[in-house]
Amino acid sequence: MTSTRDDQKPLIAITMGDPRGIGPEVVAKALARDSLFQICSPFILGDLDILQRTIATLGLGMKAVKVEVGPHFKPLPGALPVLSLSDLAPGKKSGEIPSAEGARASFLYVEKAGKMAVEGRVKALVTAPVSKEAISRAGIPFQGHTEYFAGISGTKEFVMMLAGERLKVALVTTHLALNEVSNALSEEKILSVVEITNRGLQDYFGLKTPRIAVAALNPHAGEGGLFGKEERIISRAIQRAGDRGFAVSGPWPADSLFHRAVQGEFDVVVCMYHDQGLIPLKLLHFDDAVNITLGLPFIRTSVDHGVAYDIAGKGVASSRSMEEAILLAAKMAQQKRKIQNPKP
Amino acid sequence: MTSTRDDQKPLIAITMGDPRGIGPEVVAKALARDSLFQICSPFILGDLDILQRTIATLGLGMKAVKVEVGPHFKPLPGALPVLSLSDLAPGKKSGEIPSAEGARASFLYVEKAGKMAVEGRVKALVTAPVSKEAISRAGIPFQGHTEYFAGISGTKEFVMMLAGERLKVALVTTHLALNEVSNALSEEKILSVVEITNRGLQDYFGLKTPRIAVAALNPHAGEGGLFGKEERIISRAIQRAGDRGFAVSGPWPADSLFHRAVQGEFDVVVCMYHDQGLIPLKLLHFDDAVNITLGLPFIRTSVDHGVAYDIAGKGVASSRSMEEAILLAAKMAQQKRKIQNPKP
Repeated sequence: MTSTRDDQKPLIAITMGDPRGIGPEVVAKALARDSLFQICSPFILGDLDILQRTIATLGLGMKAVKVEVGPHFKPLPGALPVLSLSDLAPGKKSGEIPSAEGARASFLYVEKAGKMAVEGRVKALVTAPVSKEAISRAGIPFQGHTEYFAGISGTKEFVMMLAGERLKVALVTTHLALNEVSNALSEEKILSVVEITNRGLQDYFGLKTPRIAVAALNPHAGEGGLFGKEERIISRAIQRAGDRGFAVSGPWPADSLFHRAVQGEFDVVVCMYHDQGLIPLKLLHFDDAVNITLGLPFIRTSVDHGVAYDIAGKGVASSRSMEEAILLAAKMAQQKRKIQNPKP
Repeated sequence: MTSTRDDQKPLIAITMGDPRGIGPEVVAKALARDSLFQICSPFILGDLDILQRTIATLGLGMKAVKVEVGPHFKPLPGALPVLSLSDLAPGKKSGEIPSAEGARASFLYVEKAGKMAVEGRVKALVTAPVSKEAISRAGIPFQGHTEYFAGISGTKEFVMMLAGERLKVALVTTHLALNEVSNALSEEKILSVVEITNRGLQDYFGLKTPRIAVAALNPHAGEGGLFGKEERIISRAIQRAGDRGFAVSGPWPADSLFHRAVQGEFDVVVCMYHDQGLIPLKLLHFDDAVNITLGLPFIRTSVDHGVAYDIAGKGVASSRSMEEAILLAAKMAQQKRKIQNPKP
């Protein structure tokens, strides 16, 4: 890996997630890898004491250090830099922290990270899992990270993209009953997702003209109108996106499309519903997929898993997705800088 | 490969498919592999002249021979055994055969093969692609191979299963608009698919207690009723199947389920809709998936592709799916015999 000059390393804010979940474990494990410090300047928004104990339990051979984050912040491998925002019952096991207390703290980390990103003080946000339900129960209205970051940055339209080495998918609809997907599709919505995805791949992935495949909704792409009519809406959106100069095509039958994308024919597949994109993505990238929010005025990646209370504190959680999320955020930041400061 | 005693080799009827499509090419290429003759006694129901010319064009170094199929039929590698049922314009290129004439011939092959299977004269049917539209336009009511074979054998309930080395999926609904899937799901229907799949895996795949996973319809399996209610119907069907002693579980979130199946946790995934099963299957088995109809009183496999008129006659079609379909039919026939004639 090429190291980057210190002053070029993007500053990356990583939230610790719900202290009762696997967040502390995956962030600590990820930052125990020295290589991440070569490409970015990471720090964790979380709880110093909890992270310190997580490191000890896991036997990671490093220590958590309290940091302030300013323009000259330079974290070093071997120490876990923590912007400590809570002091949750020192001495208790993470499972002993009351749910509401943990949830409120997890929201604090997100709130502070979001503020720093909006103010331009960090280049990218990487989030560990929180529990939406626990935060809401604790009295804080919270629909999820993505909606929160969109809200504080005044972003109206954003796209959930999931990425692995071999496949990228962008979703037109997300957490919606399958039966409601058809009604939720509109020409404008699909066009917006194609546009945001196109810009995202240009800005953050160095693709001049991203090759965007749009999946059909119905089997065999509706077989010429035989099953379902939604392909007409999708076609019109593709037509309009094509008129704007995008390298977009479809609606393609979804069953063979992901094979084609993986073979290199397309850079991304725009999917009509959650499982259409997540089934192939998780089949290829079960442990190492990264969730990216496109359309925000800053970079935001996230792990592709939840709080996993059931395995928290056992030392068995995989930190692959967190490592990939940090790595990808760093690469995206570098790519963005290249575009903003092109070499003469 | 172990060779099988001649009198134990299952007799397998292979239809040639639409003469204007890639059927003749894929059956000829498949039977150019001597190894297939070691495990079964195959023959083609088709057109001698067209197959002879296909062999010559492809330079396969064998010849097509006209055969009658009786109890002592023993085909030999190096010759393509053809039960010739048509004499379509000798000298013409396949593309020059009138569509209606080709379609009617393709139906004749299917009709004769079905008759032989119903009469117990062959152990298995393997079908090459036909054009439903062309056959219907030629004046023959035809909804598809599966429906036809179900009709002539008095089969009311059958299941489309797609199989590759790494993954098997069985479909509750098939060629249906995605928006109509929810209405088409019923407890009885799901239970029937689970039962037929269970029996199929016992009879033909040697699994005593097949581990059957049932996929949810909605993302995150509906997240406890938050998106969609269909998981209740699916759950009740699973409950009833469990009461009958099946090793069935679910409804599982579909996005991570196929990874789990591929890792060996399940033998088959019962899917609620076409693309739910076909997306992961084609991603893993683009060229070598086999379509199996379970529930018929005989074995029937099929290629997993269509007539592909656009590449017919060019010698570029892959015969992998046809080879796998014949191989699997032979294995299924051997397994069925083992169950019917267990060793003392």
